[in-house]
Amino acid sequence: MQFVRYLQCVHCGGIYLPDVVDYYCPKCGYQHGILDVIYDYDAVEAHLNPQSLAADPVRTMWRYLPLLPVANPELIPHLQVGWTPLYNTPKLAEWLGVEQCWVKDEGRNPTASFKDRASAVGVVKALEKGATRITCASTGNAASSLAGFSSAAGLPASIFVPRRAPEAKVAQLLVFGAQVFSVGGTYDQAWELCMLASAEFGWYNRNCAINPYLIEGKKTVSLELAEQFYELTPGKFPDWVVVSVGDGCTIGGVWKGLKEMHRLGFIPRLPKVLGVQAEGCQPFLTAWLNHQPLQPCDADTLADSIAVGHPRNFHKGMQAVVESGGAFVAVPDEAILEAMTTLARKAAVFGEPAGVTGAAGVKAAVQSGIIDPAESVAIIVTGNGLKDIASAIKAAGAPTLIEPDLEAVRKAL
Amino acid sequence: MQFVRYLQCVHCGGIYLPDVVDYYCPKCGYQHGILDVIYDYDAVEAHLNPQSLAADPVRTMWRYLPLLPVANPELIPHLQVGWTPLYNTPKLAEWLGVEQCWVKDEGRNPTASFKDRASAVGVVKALEKGATRITCASTGNAASSLAGFSSAAGLPASIFVPRRAPEAKVAQLLVFGAQVFSVGGTYDQAWELCMLASAEFGWYNRNCAINPYLIEGKKTVSLELAEQFYELTPGKFPDWVVVSVGDGCTIGGVWKGLKEMHRLGFIPRLPKVLGVQAEGCQPFLTAWLNHQPLQPCDADTLADSIAVGHPRNFHKGMQAVVESGGAFVAVPDEAILEAMTTLARKAAVFGEPAGVTGAAGVKAAVQSGIIDPAESVAIIVTGNGLKDIASAIKAAGAPTLIEPDLEAVRKAL
Repeated sequence: MQFVRYLQCVHCGGIYLPDVVDYYCPKCGYQHGILDVIYDYDAVEAHLNPQSLAADPVRTMWRYLPLLPVANPELIPHLQVGWTPLYNTPKLAEWLGVEQCWVKDEGRNPTASFKDRASAVGVVKALEKGATRITCASTGNAASSLAGFSSAAGLPASIFVPRRAPEAKVAQLLVFGAQVFSVGGTYDQAWELCMLASAEFGWYNRNCAINPYLIEGKKTVSLELAEQFYELTPGKFPDWVVVSVGDGCTIGGVWKGLKEMHRLGFIPRLPKVLGVQAEGCQPFLTAWLNHQPLQPCDADTLADSIAVGHPRNFHKGMQAVVESGGAFVAVPDEAILEAMTTLARKAAVFGEPAGVTGAAGVKAAVQSGIIDPAESVAIIVTGNGLKDIASAIKAAGAPTLIEPDLEAVRKAL
Repeated sequence: MQFVRYLQCVHCGGIYLPDVVDYYCPKCGYQHGILDVIYDYDAVEAHLNPQSLAADPVRTMWRYLPLLPVANPELIPHLQVGWTPLYNTPKLAEWLGVEQCWVKDEGRNPTASFKDRASAVGVVKALEKGATRITCASTGNAASSLAGFSSAAGLPASIFVPRRAPEAKVAQLLVFGAQVFSVGGTYDQAWELCMLASAEFGWYNRNCAINPYLIEGKKTVSLELAEQFYELTPGKFPDWVVVSVGDGCTIGGVWKGLKEMHRLGFIPRLPKVLGVQAEGCQPFLTAWLNHQPLQPCDADTLADSIAVGHPRNFHKGMQAVVESGGAFVAVPDEAILEAMTTLARKAAVFGEPAGVTGAAGVKAAVQSGIIDPAESVAIIVTGNGLKDIASAIKAAGAPTLIEPDLEAVRKAL
């Protein structure tokens, strides 16, 4: 917390000290009173700049410690999170119809999703508060990620998942030893139940939409993007940063990180942010197109990680697109499945449905004229394809069954 | 190939130049005539030493290029492989009953297994030979890894898997666009069929047991281990390096890498190597205990990656244990499942069954007096648990099903 100045409510502008408030603005409540962590950037700059980073051997998200709300770095668990690969993918760029395309593979994190960046911060904050148990509700990835990091931190976890969460993700939670509640209801119901249980039993609440610190972990993907491009193509940065959108926290974190690295001189010009939703669940797109407030909706998409009909961080999600001059788009499930095989075949990155939704969104945005073919894009692939094998099989088809005989091979060719 | 001197047959000692022979010793045939890649170590030393590595920004297995058989580094595909995390895991050490335990998490590789190190070399060698297609037979991981790397290299792949290969691994192959033959038979039958097809259709053969270059990729895990310990605990190295054993190639590669880093001064004293098999398939253990040649056997274990009744690299696998003064042990499937949850709960690393078999073996080896409680171990976890969710579920049990109601939570607590 060396450089944290205060927490500020995105709704009423109220300012709070971290010692006083844990989660959300007490005046505005958790539906609106999301807090933002405000740093002393002048002080940060002295400790986080191209020279300091070049000299830093740490190759995890913790190399950005001056921009993270951690008071006691000794509590950081051992799992190595962040510093994921960034790939230049010309074949994918050609397929998408853009000048240049970069893929950041967040499936390479410890529990195979982007959410590890948030959970890493979450368990440290819980330990700092002296919590004896941590909880969250999740469509899957935040949960498996919290399970992994609470195991690493030696902190028990109780996790609420909707009944539709894929088996693989639930298995991950259980293997890591978390107490898992499979809630007979939607993600939104699991989320509300987790809020109640956290208050009732005093569990530290890792839910990203109401805990101001989690998004600070998420923003590190942009800190890395900025540094990686600063090294690769100094003075240049992609025109668009692309990510799929569920709760709004991820895209909010992405935008915050970009702004911070712009402020620190790593990014010459802020990019536009493209938020991609599934057609079966597009509350951000609807609100953005109609200049309306959020209308919660049903969620019907195979991209379970973004099947969020009632986004809990509408403010920060909308802000990312509006402030950056970007856009929301939505894509059908078929386009998501097509992106799954295309990303694997043209960029050799195997992402889960919500992980590749960003790529499908770029294709749609190029076709509708939102992205110009002369522009460049950086796509954040948020989770590993092994997380959702059922969808992978849907996308990829079946193997050729043969008997152990050369003639059978010849016939099949 | 800058520092490769020649290829040497492990059976007859015959020496061949890489330009002349592609796979195995023409005199001894593929059953016995496995070739070893011999380098000019004096020349290597000038390019690979603590100073050179400290100055090298590359954080992949390619930082050991002087010890790799690659003639044209420009052919190296973009996927970042290697430089996986090494964790000190005191809680796991306590459970195992050893002084200190380190875990190297190979599930963090691009397609989530150790095999990526071999496939990365395989596709480069295929491209160097001007191959237009690459093939392998695999219980799963080598296959999915080859599929990923052939996608990255733009080289078509035809892959033979036994019918019992887990769905997740097969889905991976298909998503990456490989041609997949699911062979109605054992791994051994798939392997023989692949050999025939390679010869018949002129496909480059990635099978690790007959292609001398693949094991060179595998050895990089030991090059990393050596360098990581050199940085962490200069002058010290674990007493044991532990890995599960199927074909014999992995443990053979592990041992070769250790010897090379000892030769180069990174390891003060060579460790013992513990090779761990499943009780349902333990041809190495049987031969080692009885001082007998290999007797192929049936394979009956849920650890599919090491369900190899006819190991194709018996020589190098046996050599690793005998030369190092180590041991083979075998563990039942129940111990493997127990290791799966234990590793996840005490080290926060989620490994597939064959990936955690090494840990189960340490426990057995301590109980039988092979490993002394005062000794330290480094366990190589060879694959990610997401690769085999069915086993994870067997190991971890089921979630608590509740309705979206706080009373239900209270009752379940």
